[in-house]
Amino acid sequence: MPQFASSVNQYPGRASLIWYAILIVTGTAALYLWPACAASPEAPISLLDALFTSTSAACVTGLGVRSTVHDFSYTGQAVILALIQLGGVGIMTVTTFIVVQFSRTGNLRQRKVIADTLGAGEGGDLRVILRNVLMMTLFFETAGFMILAAYNQINYAHYADAGVWSSHGEATWHALFHSISAFCNAGFALHDRSLIPFAESFVVNATIAVLVIVGGLGFPVVNDLWKSRKRPAPDRWGSLQLHSKIMLIGTGVLLVLGFASFLTLESDGVLKGDPALLKVFKAAFHSVTCRTAGFNTVETGDLTNAMLFISILLMMIGGGPCSTAGGFKVSTAAIICLRAWSTFQGYARVNLYRRTISPRSIERAVATAMLFMAIAAIALTALLVIEQSTISHNSGQGKFIDTFFEVISALGTVGLSTGLTTSLSSPSRVIIIVLMLMGRLGPITTFAALAHGERNERVEYPTAEPIVG
Amino acid sequence: MPQFASSVNQYPGRASLIWYAILIVTGTAALYLWPACAASPEAPISLLDALFTSTSAACVTGLGVRSTVHDFSYTGQAVILALIQLGGVGIMTVTTFIVVQFSRTGNLRQRKVIADTLGAGEGGDLRVILRNVLMMTLFFETAGFMILAAYNQINYAHYADAGVWSSHGEATWHALFHSISAFCNAGFALHDRSLIPFAESFVVNATIAVLVIVGGLGFPVVNDLWKSRKRPAPDRWGSLQLHSKIMLIGTGVLLVLGFASFLTLESDGVLKGDPALLKVFKAAFHSVTCRTAGFNTVETGDLTNAMLFISILLMMIGGGPCSTAGGFKVSTAAIICLRAWSTFQGYARVNLYRRTISPRSIERAVATAMLFMAIAAIALTALLVIEQSTISHNSGQGKFIDTFFEVISALGTVGLSTGLTTSLSSPSRVIIIVLMLMGRLGPITTFAALAHGERNERVEYPTAEPIVG
Ligand SMILES: [K+]
Ligand SMILES: [K+]
Repeated sequence: MPQFASSVNQYPGRASLIWYAILIVTGTAALYLWPACAASPEAPISLLDALFTSTSAACVTGLGVRSTVHDFSYTGQAVILALIQLGGVGIMTVTTFIVVQFSRTGNLRQRKVIADTLGAGEGGDLRVILRNVLMMTLFFETAGFMILAAYNQINYAHYADAGVWSSHGEATWHALFHSISAFCNAGFALHDRSLIPFAESFVVNATIAVLVIVGGLGFPVVNDLWKSRKRPAPDRWGSLQLHSKIMLIGTGVLLVLGFASFLTLESDGVLKGDPALLKVFKAAFHSVTCRTAGFNTVETGDLTNAMLFISILLMMIGGGPCSTAGGFKVSTAAIICLRAWSTFQGYARVNLYRRTISPRSIERAVATAMLFMAIAAIALTALLVIEQSTISHNSGQGKFIDTFFEVISALGTVGLSTGLTTSLSSPSRVIIIVLMLMGRLGPITTFAALAHGERNERVEYPTAEPIVG
Repeated sequence: MPQFASSVNQYPGRASLIWYAILIVTGTAALYLWPACAASPEAPISLLDALFTSTSAACVTGLGVRSTVHDFSYTGQAVILALIQLGGVGIMTVTTFIVVQFSRTGNLRQRKVIADTLGAGEGGDLRVILRNVLMMTLFFETAGFMILAAYNQINYAHYADAGVWSSHGEATWHALFHSISAFCNAGFALHDRSLIPFAESFVVNATIAVLVIVGGLGFPVVNDLWKSRKRPAPDRWGSLQLHSKIMLIGTGVLLVLGFASFLTLESDGVLKGDPALLKVFKAAFHSVTCRTAGFNTVETGDLTNAMLFISILLMMIGGGPCSTAGGFKVSTAAIICLRAWSTFQGYARVNLYRRTISPRSIERAVATAMLFMAIAAIALTALLVIEQSTISHNSGQGKFIDTFFEVISALGTVGLSTGLTTSLSSPSRVIIIVLMLMGRLGPITTFAALAHGERNERVEYPTAEPIVG
């Protein structure tokens, strides 16, 4: 055991990998071997379907090859919900722990900066992190559950007539399931058309949106905001960590961009004929959920190509580090933009709010984004070859953006789909499973988990400057 | 004038921008204002068409909104050929000069390394570079012309029957035009179906392929190979610059990958029914030309999605620096891969052939690739919004990969198209024009030409380490 622990300490990326491997295998075993999980004995869950569902739930992605509500019993749904909860809490705890571990290689000052940023206590104690993460999760999920449960009971008849549920108990189960699924950015919903039945409800839209945004900002940001609550309002912004400022501004910018482009591009598309308020609801909800949560109140496959591509870009960016969100992260994108802007202005240093962003952060941001795109390109090529190698562009051309969307949705742990998932062949499903796991671990962590540890440096030869670009 | 010269020296990227601006404006004026350039007075060349054609020729891209052979007279074709030649020679000379200028900021040792790599003489004299570039160009274009001219005369009747040409003079003009167009990686052909009529000819395939590869390797590599010619064969490889070794291996790997995937993926596609030898010809030719030349012997629009996406990746990479090719360059891609591989193995340094690749080269490579992709993403979004904002994914889905392909083809100065170019609206054509120019200058040079020069460094604040990825 000491050897195992030291290996986990040395390669903290592996701790994350092991956590998800255990979760996924246990979930797969439950869904596959426990007959009570299937809704009907005539439609048992195959091993690959169980693996796909378990990975999708544990990695809080939300892509599905089976219907959560029709193919799984309450028992099966409870297993899925447990995987989502353990996956969501786990990622926040483990990634926070990993960041602290990585910081051990830095000097004392760096370590303190990182521990401060994370709200991880002086030494980055795993128990302190876990307790704080659990408290935050419990608070938001309980609040969300109570609001949704009250709403569902008050409006019970309306949705019962529409076939959404058939008992008061079921309506409450929906509230619990959707509250946890939203905070964990999982995107699993107890309706085959996701949250489309609730498209017109302000309460559901707002509750889910708040849960998704808070879950996606990440534990360090929420922790920082919580710590600043006692300060007088004018000082509050100034007292936040730089990381929190970057995340809050970045998230705001992305929300506005997504909202404005959806409203503009889809006014003659999926929004056509809707009353003004419903248009605003749908645009705002898509903007909130498409980066990482994966709920939808419009049919994704009906969007225009332009909006699908903008959604792909938003899915790539995702949410915040140490959060339940995926993607290469808002802070990563922000730091790359800041670096480019500083260079454009002729500065070698990146300064923001009287802080200088460390070159190490910049290098890591660039590496993360590049790895994410490289993995996506390789997976997209593989999927295109497997699925469409015999169809010419002229007859199968429409499938390209569907496949592109599916790959980024899996790698960004978003879970939106234009409808391709269920028609994928088994090898392609395996690729999607691997993508969901890699996306959940993060490109850098995956890389670190598989790579060789730091070695003694090799000899330095005369420098060469190959010409580039 | 001294002020102008010093400004060009200070921002060498601007020299390149000015050179292309002059070329494009002159070419546009000639094609638009000189009635003799149009094939028929009934179909005059509009200003936008003239600008598009002039930019496409000067930036050796090859995308066309008008037919080179049917809409332009011999005079017009000669103007286009002159633009191609000046654009091709210009880019090799100017970019080589720019690299030398940039190296002025380094120390004496760095400067010598770069001057050696470039074969630019001790001080990086512009006249020495220009003379060497002109000699190389003249040699290869003359050789190519003589082979093609002989072939065209010998096989005159065969192609005359097929309607490719109607006089011996025209056949010779074809040889000259295609030889220059191939060496300059321009992709302009005197046939509306590009080189499809010559798909079965080994001589044409081989001659064009050699011209394209040599032009795309870049002046520094060819110069280096030329200098090593006198050494005994076993020493020859060892005596090459690291840059040349990277370019030669990288180009070889990409050629094999493109060839193998085309042969595999299209065996039931565009290659169906072809005899084995013709399959090999077509696959090899596509592999050679799709990275940057832009000639084609198969209909691009008939390819499978998988092959189109692989072609997009190849177009993004392109050819070599200081060559007639576009893309973010083979050496850039190679250095990024080497950096990733070294990190994976646990090394902080990138060693290759007993040389250590400088961190500056690596940073520049990463910045080049990221800028290239950022420009492509912005342009693709704009084009999708302009062209398809009112068409839902379900009815207009096929257009996505066409638009994606078109954007990368323009930015990579490739010139292949699935057929979208002529149907683009005027605003979209302007975007394509800007992309061709940016692609020709290169993302970093464009950025440098527009950016503020280096400033005195700003104050250094306490370091912040925002969390990423
Ligand atoms: K999700
Ligand atoms: K070209």
